Amino acid sequence: MSEDLNGAELKTLSLKQLSALCEELRGKIIRSVMTNGGHLSSNLGMVELTVALHYVFDFPKDKIIFDVGHQCYTHKLLSGRESGFATLRKRGGLSGFPKREESEYDCYNTGHAGTSVSAALGIAKARDLEGGDYDVIAVIGDGSFNNGLVYEAFNSLKPLGTNILVIINDNGMSISPTVGSMHEYLEVLSADAEEQYHKTRRAGIFERFGFEYDGVYDGNDLACMIDVLQKIKPRLKDRSVILHVLTKKGKGYSFCEENPEATHGIGGKPAAETVEYSAILGKKLCELAERNNKIVAVTAAMTGSLGLAPFFEKFPERAVDVGICEEHATILCAAMAAQGLKPYYAVYSTFLQRSFDEIIIDICSQNLPVTLCIDRAGISGADGETHQGVFDLSFLSFIPNLTIAVPRDTEEFAAMLELSADFGAPLAIRYPRACTHRFGDVKKVVVGTWEKLSDGDGRVVILACGERAISRALDAAVLAEKRGVKAKVVNARFVKPLDKAMLASLEEHTVITVEDNMLAGGFGSLISSYFSESDKKVKNFAYEDRFIEQGGVDELMDDYGLKVSDIAEYIVKSV
Amino acid sequence: MSEDLNGAELKTLSLKQLSALCEELRGKIIRSVMTNGGHLSSNLGMVELTVALHYVFDFPKDKIIFDVGHQCYTHKLLSGRESGFATLRKRGGLSGFPKREESEYDCYNTGHAGTSVSAALGIAKARDLEGGDYDVIAVIGDGSFNNGLVYEAFNSLKPLGTNILVIINDNGMSISPTVGSMHEYLEVLSADAEEQYHKTRRAGIFERFGFEYDGVYDGNDLACMIDVLQKIKPRLKDRSVILHVLTKKGKGYSFCEENPEATHGIGGKPAAETVEYSAILGKKLCELAERNNKIVAVTAAMTGSLGLAPFFEKFPERAVDVGICEEHATILCAAMAAQGLKPYYAVYSTFLQRSFDEIIIDICSQNLPVTLCIDRAGISGADGETHQGVFDLSFLSFIPNLTIAVPRDTEEFAAMLELSADFGAPLAIRYPRACTHRFGDVKKVVVGTWEKLSDGDGRVVILACGERAISRALDAAVLAEKRGVKAKVVNARFVKPLDKAMLASLEEHTVITVEDNMLAGGFGSLISSYFSESDKKVKNFAYEDRFIEQGGVDELMDDYGLKVSDIAEYIVKSV
Repeated sequence: MSEDLNGAELKTLSLKQLSALCEELRGKIIRSVMTNGGHLSSNLGMVELTVALHYVFDFPKDKIIFDVGHQCYTHKLLSGRESGFATLRKRGGLSGFPKREESEYDCYNTGHAGTSVSAALGIAKARDLEGGDYDVIAVIGDGSFNNGLVYEAFNSLKPLGTNILVIINDNGMSISPTVGSMHEYLEVLSADAEEQYHKTRRAGIFERFGFEYDGVYDGNDLACMIDVLQKIKPRLKDRSVILHVLTKKGKGYSFCEENPEATHGIGGKPAAETVEYSAILGKKLCELAERNNKIVAVTAAMTGSLGLAPFFEKFPERAVDVGICEEHATILCAAMAAQGLKPYYAVYSTFLQRSFDEIIIDICSQNLPVTLCIDRAGISGADGETHQGVFDLSFLSFIPNLTIAVPRDTEEFAAMLELSADFGAPLAIRYPRACTHRFGDVKKVVVGTWEKLSDGDGRVVILACGERAISRALDAAVLAEKRGVKAKVVNARFVKPLDKAMLASLEEHTVITVEDNMLAGGFGSLISSYFSESDKKVKNFAYEDRFIEQGGVDELMDDYGLKVSDIAEYIVKSV
Repeated sequence: MSEDLNGAELKTLSLKQLSALCEELRGKIIRSVMTNGGHLSSNLGMVELTVALHYVFDFPKDKIIFDVGHQCYTHKLLSGRESGFATLRKRGGLSGFPKREESEYDCYNTGHAGTSVSAALGIAKARDLEGGDYDVIAVIGDGSFNNGLVYEAFNSLKPLGTNILVIINDNGMSISPTVGSMHEYLEVLSADAEEQYHKTRRAGIFERFGFEYDGVYDGNDLACMIDVLQKIKPRLKDRSVILHVLTKKGKGYSFCEENPEATHGIGGKPAAETVEYSAILGKKLCELAERNNKIVAVTAAMTGSLGLAPFFEKFPERAVDVGICEEHATILCAAMAAQGLKPYYAVYSTFLQRSFDEIIIDICSQNLPVTLCIDRAGISGADGETHQGVFDLSFLSFIPNLTIAVPRDTEEFAAMLELSADFGAPLAIRYPRACTHRFGDVKKVVVGTWEKLSDGDGRVVILACGERAISRALDAAVLAEKRGVKAKVVNARFVKPLDKAMLASLEEHTVITVEDNMLAGGFGSLISSYFSESDKKVKNFAYEDRFIEQGGVDELMDDYGLKVSDIAEYIVKSV
């Protein structure tokens, strides 16, 4: 395949050549993901559909938005980015998601679920106002299709009076299998799909919203996809269409086809000696639930990756997967708590952003004992800007009634979960994916208390928040000690409330904070505020004011503000 | 009406007596709202439905959740809170929204749109797990029904396997008239409602989600409502039902019936000599749009109260009301900006919380020139905890690429809007409802520059952010000057970027910050961080770490941390 293969050339190929191209693309995707990690099974399912789209439409003149965006690899390979494909998800390399900065073929960046139809409508509305002549396409999986944003966008199609194509890429999976009535409806529509190719059906719900519905088709049948899209394209001049296709997640790679959840995301697996915090969550939550039948667990379509599978197996009636509906999940927890249950909502830090309003209004203003288990907090790495969990301390620390805990390792995480069981107010516990450090035995954790990890010489103290920050603080202290300054290191395991007793007793003149979070509004800023009227000097090590791109966790931590040598240098210079 | 009137007594009344009760309740609501302000027309429309609910169901054993909650006045009057009704929306008085802290008849606090169905499902799920025997009812208006949360909740009804009653209170209005296909669908269902009382219709969409649909009925016909609810109650044991009723917003008070948008919220109107920032927004945006045809304006169902009515009238094709869909509105703006348009999204501060994730991902990570016009920022007053706009500086200030401006008065607001027209990046401008102060002529505003408002004696400087803070800072400076300390006062009109040049040149040892926002993560915390390594003392005046209840704006500002005398005292003591 030529690196410069573009839409115009693609259009000259025969069906046979295009089929061969699909196999070639599939091979490239498998090799790349096996090397660099990434989203595998969803991309394998999208090959034929994407080739057909590039064959029928004229990108970048026509615009395509991939919902979430993790399924855009074929699109990238077909839009002049093949030579860069070996750098996929690496520092400075191609993103695993659509990026406007990367190519004019990417018109809108995605990363979180459900935004594609809204974005398509905005682009189409702009086209109409500017008198443009191009088509706008949103490609959305059945998992994202559960998100409330889709309903909001559908609901405004008619008032906006514009035309778009929405392709539902129905593979029956979110990351976990897709749940809910909308998915059931899609199943009804596709029940006898095998006999229904090329037949148009009625789909009352979608028609109500102003869409013509076209489906159900086998999205992995290239000839069929080309044919269907060719018929749809002219219709888009004066109407909006939903094209419903069934694709096979992991298509063409039998291991993926048989294990779609496990092969949704590949790579980035921590080394063998590490423990994932999610494993501890699953284990400990089961243990707590044995003792307390008020405990319920809620997830938004990520049972496995959050470690909840054992809980879902053991306590199915107390386990709820609402699909990719983070806001609804949060309110569900608040309401169950209002009735006396003890809900745990497990979620990735970046996706918790969707629940921000509900954390304030539903959970915290009612002071309800919901526990937020915030996984992938801090830099998450190769997924880049849209997936870093570096905002949570900033967006949680000003919310009244909320307690925020940050464990130093999985053992302390277990102790915090133990503590949570009897805690009668909102509690957030944030932690990264993998635990790679140990800092000694954990004693019982008391809310609002910190732990001294090492002694200093009375001049400098480091307040470090969370495993990665503590590890770097200790390393920096070792370097500084060699240069004559011995800094005390403290495990600042509660960001809220702060350990005021320890803060008041600190004798050191220089206070250093280290955290795996943005500088503004983070842990360090709370310490700066605490000491703002005192004579102490406070120095914050945290992430600077810019979006953090993709890369390895450690290299990004170095580059964005948490370099061990910088911390050590500051310790030495500060005295 | 007896103050102690409860459900048991209500059930002994005849239809005639109940009708008389409705008129009595209506009179009480009108008198109360005319005195204390509040939501008028929506409550007048809800009288018969609420009386019927109390007649048929057994509260507080049965649970009712009012979506948004502004329509709960009759419910409050029927649940032992009549004697407190004169204190409605006053400091320490009855809330204008449901409050668990206030009565066991309120099982779940609301305030923001679309949460009621999720909350009802959570409560029903808890009931099922605990073996409870009661009914759970969500009452939701057709405006809230546009919110994506409703779809998320509907979608999980079947997986949760529980039973609830959802009453759609369809009055054709959000605050603005309701828009969108779902509302069109409700209209189709109710098209010939006059002839359809007591007839059950099919509503395919709702049935797909697992609801039986019952409608359409005249919700202001008390006998009808009692009859319908009595028939529905036994069905709730083994199924979920949607009851669709039509009510007349403002029912029984002709001025309200004719002016439902204007009488949605009554009172709290600023005094005659004040100007509302929203009026300036409408005027200035029209002016800018005359010159620049890329400008578009977006609202989530609040055209009038945000001042956008003139724009909507003058530029209908460039004006979009998406209904109560704050997330969708935000993405629509980002996508239009990605195509070269210049979108302005106007929204109340408290409702902007819903767009938090989209501000980060869609607007700021793509660095798109969307302008957020954030009205009702700071303490908003009588609506209480769920409506205070005191979090926005905290949840915006750590987002990369975002510029945050806070005008000192409406004149500076106009200058900032002028500036926004050529500003090629995300911009947030936050302001309270009413402008009641003037601080001299406004010169051209340059991004990231502050303005010295008064000279000091070189010992204390006050950095004040926004009109109310500046007013208090100046008052405090006057008090302190009488006691011998003359503080400089600065209009810190950009929270991001800070005016680093001015900060670097400050000679004063004591820096005081004042802002109409939470302490943690707010403007002051940025200043504390800025000076954390210096010898300067920084003192922040901002709101303490608790939810701010209802009351007058000034009394709340005093009580939660911005008392002028406290600031003056600090100035004097600090030297």
